[in-house]
Amino acid sequence: MSMPGADTDTLYFEDFPLGQVREYGDFEVNALRIKAFAEQFDPQPFHLDDHAARETMAGGLIASGWHTVVMLHRMNYDGFLKRMASQGGLGVEEIRWTQPVRPGDRLSAKCTIAAARPSKSRPDLGIVDFAFEVFNQKGERVMTEKLIALLKRRSAAAETSS
Amino acid sequence: MSMPGADTDTLYFEDFPLGQVREYGDFEVNALRIKAFAEQFDPQPFHLDDHAARETMAGGLIASGWHTVVMLHRMNYDGFLKRMASQGGLGVEEIRWTQPVRPGDRLSAKCTIAAARPSKSRPDLGIVDFAFEVFNQKGERVMTEKLIALLKRRSAAAETSS
Repeated sequence: MSMPGADTDTLYFEDFPLGQVREYGDFEVNALRIKAFAEQFDPQPFHLDDHAARETMAGGLIASGWHTVVMLHRMNYDGFLKRMASQGGLGVEEIRWTQPVRPGDRLSAKCTIAAARPSKSRPDLGIVDFAFEVFNQKGERVMTEKLIALLKRRSAAAETSS
Repeated sequence: MSMPGADTDTLYFEDFPLGQVREYGDFEVNALRIKAFAEQFDPQPFHLDDHAARETMAGGLIASGWHTVVMLHRMNYDGFLKRMASQGGLGVEEIRWTQPVRPGDRLSAKCTIAAARPSKSRPDLGIVDFAFEVFNQKGERVMTEKLIALLKRRSAAAETSS
């Protein structure tokens, strides 16, 4: 959220061209984290208790779908967001949970730029559509998410700092 | 996730008709919770540190948008989900963050049934589109979310248990 000049470390709108693919992340899922998240935000039995979970259609402890969403966000942060000249997330267009996430899984992320356009009302900003996929260690896709974010343009940053 | 008969406590597909509105929740947001969530999942300075946050466009500590998403889910759980014959979330269609959430805010939720239809492939199940709105104590809408879920039908549950 700081507003540096057009330095080389910071990722601007121009660093996210259409079709670009980034792969990153190695997020370890374990039973302790699954239960800690569930206690706070999603206390359903198949997220909380191994024995109870075996009796459900989940067949054993699984992570809350919302836990997977925020694990993806943490991978995004470490992967590129911490260096990105973000002006905020405009919103989410779609989330799909496609496979359960279980203790022992190691998650990774793939980010594809689905669209990138300058803002019409703010020429110093650009709008990027991100398409995320989350995979487990077996290469199974466990979640997809589409997110739209507002970014500072490099050209505008260079003008500001000159 | 247990599969009770068509008892009166459990909420089935038929208990979520088109246009129905539920209001619930009184979720207290504080700086400690904002920072604890951010440390794990979204360690941007305006979610982590009061002083750093004042220097940003946020103007002070604000909750991660993803924190608001999972606070809504907890309100949903307490509000109706814990009694619902859920067969799982099919996905999210849209999330919009419309106002910042700050320490001291008290959040509440409004849930409107935007669509409800029997499943074509599984006559024992129904599909419900939920439209959620999250408000702060000033009545400002801070977030909206559209979610699609699969529910057991009451008629099918009655047959199973007979």
